[in-house]
Amino acid sequence: MGALRLPSLTSLSSAAAAAVVPRYYFCRQLRLPLRSLSAAKFSVQSSTVEKEIAATTPELEASSQKPKLQPEKDRVITPRSKDFNAWYLDIIANAELADYGPVRGTMVIRPYGYAIWEAIQDYLNVKFKETGHSNMYFPQFIPYSFIEKEASHVEGFSPELAVVTIGGGKELEEKLVVRPTSETIVNHMFTQWIHSYRDLPLMINQWANVTRWEMRTKPFVRTLEFLWQEGHTAHASPEEAEKEALQMIDVYTKFAYEQAAIPVVAGRKSKVETFAGAAKTYTIEAMMGDRKALQAGTSHNLGQNFSRAFDTQFMDENGQRQHVWQTSWAISTRFVGGIIMTHGDDVGLMLPPNLAPIQVIIVPIWKKADEKVGVLSAASTAKEALQAAGIKVKIDDSEQRTPGWKFNFWEMKGVPLRIEVGPRDVSNGSVVVSRRDIPGKQGKVFGISMESSTLVAYVKGKLDEIQSSLLERAKTFRDGNIVDVSSYSELKEAIAQGKWARGPWSASDSEELKVKEETGATIRCFPFEQPEGTKKCLMTGNPADEVAIFAKSY
Amino acid sequence: MGALRLPSLTSLSSAAAAAVVPRYYFCRQLRLPLRSLSAAKFSVQSSTVEKEIAATTPELEASSQKPKLQPEKDRVITPRSKDFNAWYLDIIANAELADYGPVRGTMVIRPYGYAIWEAIQDYLNVKFKETGHSNMYFPQFIPYSFIEKEASHVEGFSPELAVVTIGGGKELEEKLVVRPTSETIVNHMFTQWIHSYRDLPLMINQWANVTRWEMRTKPFVRTLEFLWQEGHTAHASPEEAEKEALQMIDVYTKFAYEQAAIPVVAGRKSKVETFAGAAKTYTIEAMMGDRKALQAGTSHNLGQNFSRAFDTQFMDENGQRQHVWQTSWAISTRFVGGIIMTHGDDVGLMLPPNLAPIQVIIVPIWKKADEKVGVLSAASTAKEALQAAGIKVKIDDSEQRTPGWKFNFWEMKGVPLRIEVGPRDVSNGSVVVSRRDIPGKQGKVFGISMESSTLVAYVKGKLDEIQSSLLERAKTFRDGNIVDVSSYSELKEAIAQGKWARGPWSASDSEELKVKEETGATIRCFPFEQPEGTKKCLMTGNPADEVAIFAKSY
Repeated sequence: MGALRLPSLTSLSSAAAAAVVPRYYFCRQLRLPLRSLSAAKFSVQSSTVEKEIAATTPELEASSQKPKLQPEKDRVITPRSKDFNAWYLDIIANAELADYGPVRGTMVIRPYGYAIWEAIQDYLNVKFKETGHSNMYFPQFIPYSFIEKEASHVEGFSPELAVVTIGGGKELEEKLVVRPTSETIVNHMFTQWIHSYRDLPLMINQWANVTRWEMRTKPFVRTLEFLWQEGHTAHASPEEAEKEALQMIDVYTKFAYEQAAIPVVAGRKSKVETFAGAAKTYTIEAMMGDRKALQAGTSHNLGQNFSRAFDTQFMDENGQRQHVWQTSWAISTRFVGGIIMTHGDDVGLMLPPNLAPIQVIIVPIWKKADEKVGVLSAASTAKEALQAAGIKVKIDDSEQRTPGWKFNFWEMKGVPLRIEVGPRDVSNGSVVVSRRDIPGKQGKVFGISMESSTLVAYVKGKLDEIQSSLLERAKTFRDGNIVDVSSYSELKEAIAQGKWARGPWSASDSEELKVKEETGATIRCFPFEQPEGTKKCLMTGNPADEVAIFAKSY
Repeated sequence: MGALRLPSLTSLSSAAAAAVVPRYYFCRQLRLPLRSLSAAKFSVQSSTVEKEIAATTPELEASSQKPKLQPEKDRVITPRSKDFNAWYLDIIANAELADYGPVRGTMVIRPYGYAIWEAIQDYLNVKFKETGHSNMYFPQFIPYSFIEKEASHVEGFSPELAVVTIGGGKELEEKLVVRPTSETIVNHMFTQWIHSYRDLPLMINQWANVTRWEMRTKPFVRTLEFLWQEGHTAHASPEEAEKEALQMIDVYTKFAYEQAAIPVVAGRKSKVETFAGAAKTYTIEAMMGDRKALQAGTSHNLGQNFSRAFDTQFMDENGQRQHVWQTSWAISTRFVGGIIMTHGDDVGLMLPPNLAPIQVIIVPIWKKADEKVGVLSAASTAKEALQAAGIKVKIDDSEQRTPGWKFNFWEMKGVPLRIEVGPRDVSNGSVVVSRRDIPGKQGKVFGISMESSTLVAYVKGKLDEIQSSLLERAKTFRDGNIVDVSSYSELKEAIAQGKWARGPWSASDSEELKVKEETGATIRCFPFEQPEGTKKCLMTGNPADEVAIFAKSY
């Protein structure tokens, strides 16, 4: 899959959808063959794999009869405003980000989607090392008895476990859990490695796959198996552990703002929403395009919960044995879903330049054969100049598609900038540059000099502008959809309107659960940024220290 | 585990071993506390995890009573010549490369060992992309029925499978295999993505964990779960697939020679040794320090075996449907074991500079307090100069250990170069540089200028020299241990001497199996480099086209 290719055909029609395409679509003919990723197929529960396979076979047979590049029908992506979920799945299929695996709820991450994950990894991996963590790898098979050692951990995870009961053809005496997270096995090993205060802090991270037997799945957002990093640290004091947990949620927050252009709200989870086994959970909550919240990263202060369960002790400077204080923190491939649902629009994906696998697509345009050489040569010179400057650039010089088709295709793929080079541009020594985030003429600038340093500087400047612009746009959207509430009825109204409600909260866990039952919204977090002044709980009228944010979530 | 720490204590003694330490050891006191990694614990079969856990607990209890930095006894690593296996396990424990996981046969890869794997990944990942492959990710759970589709594949892998039978608390209708390799699920997906010749070649790679229920395990070399990359490609013709399979074994060969300084023998596997499901298997075979062969990487031409089983077809340029021709290729964490067993010596690990997590260790030396500032400042200046030049460098300025102890420790960890900075060096503006691969005075050069550009150039030159020198040494060792044989009795003698036997071979599969039964040796490969002239099969006397290499192997 060296070269990106066209989405394949589908038999699914969406005539209704085609009627609601946005205005600027009609400027040029959109001729993208639509590949469908059926929501039902992914999320409906089915314990039988056979059924899945049988269900997909006829479809495959049908589509493999047709050469891919001659679509029978031209279709568009379901408009976001019409059906957010269908839009999301259409984008994933058409931009070739992922596909369904054969087992219910599993996902194949395709090269273009995986490249976004690699960009996330590249950034975070450096930050983790800068903050003193080393990568390592723990086995994924965990003895069942380990999971049972920490009481709230087993309660939280046991319904979601995949269990290996047969190994090498024999029934195992002890069942093995396929890791849903690694706190238990990490502590088993930490207990062997930590003896003295000199061994602390112990700060590690692993990039790994994890498995949670989820019933309602959705590509990237919630899959049976997903990829993530999980940091695990052990410290000699509770203050150090708390500092670490806060440091890592801060790393995630900066990553979300600066790389993903997602203006997350960082804060602390309520007791009800705290990770199974943690003392405190910090979170970054992102507002998606449908205004539902996505928990995009978490950092847990585990206190001594796991160190007591696994007897992870150290000798302190006074010769006293103490249990270590710990943290764990994670970001997963779910984040890719967050990027799609924050920035995407009716046209397709819109990627923040800092994480885009292709930042600039060059489309050479020619009609006559004698124009071709000059145009391709100019395109290639531009490509080399940009590449040498560290910009991720690609030329689409295929002859099977029109320039208009290519414009649409690469806009759908979310490439931030497009450079057009035609015969007139060649003779003028200039190019045309179009922004993905500003449709039509407004985002298009003519006559940018082809001279290498000028072009590189211009492109870099534009990529920075797009990066900032995506963040600003998302901030405006977020702030326009958070409502300050001071009573339960105001909260209910805000949630009914699909918004986030922010209000003082000091009520009980059961009242929190009542809100969930009655409105579908949960406390996403007590944000770190708190308003000044005295507050009264929106539910009870009692004094409250903090405001909480309530929202429906993924 | 940001900082590298000392190996922890053990209760295991090896008094006998201490008597056979090499000559140069006695120049200075070796005071490394030995951590043991029991071979028995790792390789003995036990279907119960509980037993393992119970067995380790008392040991943990005992060792955690003692502060780690005050060893009761000073011990050395078991000499390589005395017990190769014990030496190997001692190195893994003391250099903190890996530890045992709680489940029999599983391994925890610790930061120093993982950093070697990361260096391998960094190099190969670039090469894979340069040769047109994209990374992606397939789910690890494979429907059991998939494995059964390709006849020889199921025969080869079914005894080694880990099987998930419970998901989300319920018995699954179809059992799921935890991937032992991904050809089956890859083909299931390729069938959906490939329609026309325009979709080919399809060239992908994934970095992943795989599980094989091995009975006899050994850290890195053979573990129940291991990390690897697996490339999978589909082509429109058998010639293209063959070219790809050869290209990738060539990438591996260059990697082994140039990065790992391992002079592998590249060649083709015999039919008996071919991968379950492949038409042809190419391999790189490395000679370990005990002269056993290690299969260090393989590349398979799968022909149409999987495409027929999964009906992976494309429409060719003439409108005819054809099954695709495929390849797959892999290198795993086993390669880390290969590096240890190729270059290590009685002192410990010896890492090739191109893959060493730390290429240069700086040991500042002072006695009086007033010397300290000058020495540390000079060490730090040297570090910054080297780091700025892209050299991986670390200062060991801990005050709890003597310089002699540090010398031993970092030699044991296999760091290629050591820089010593003492008060006299500071006043002379120079440093002392010692090579890990040349023991004692011979490898030590005094009076290297501290001036940045001079020091950087000198260190770079030395690292290159060490890289070449390790390769040359390994080549000499390899060539001195391959015996050309022309009869079965000569073959038996060579194998009995622990060497590799190379001789003409055109005998049957059953005769090949007879050799294995009678000598313990197998055909490692028919090497690409073949001697000139006519040949007669060493077993039958019939004409033979090629020589084969026979050896005992891991």
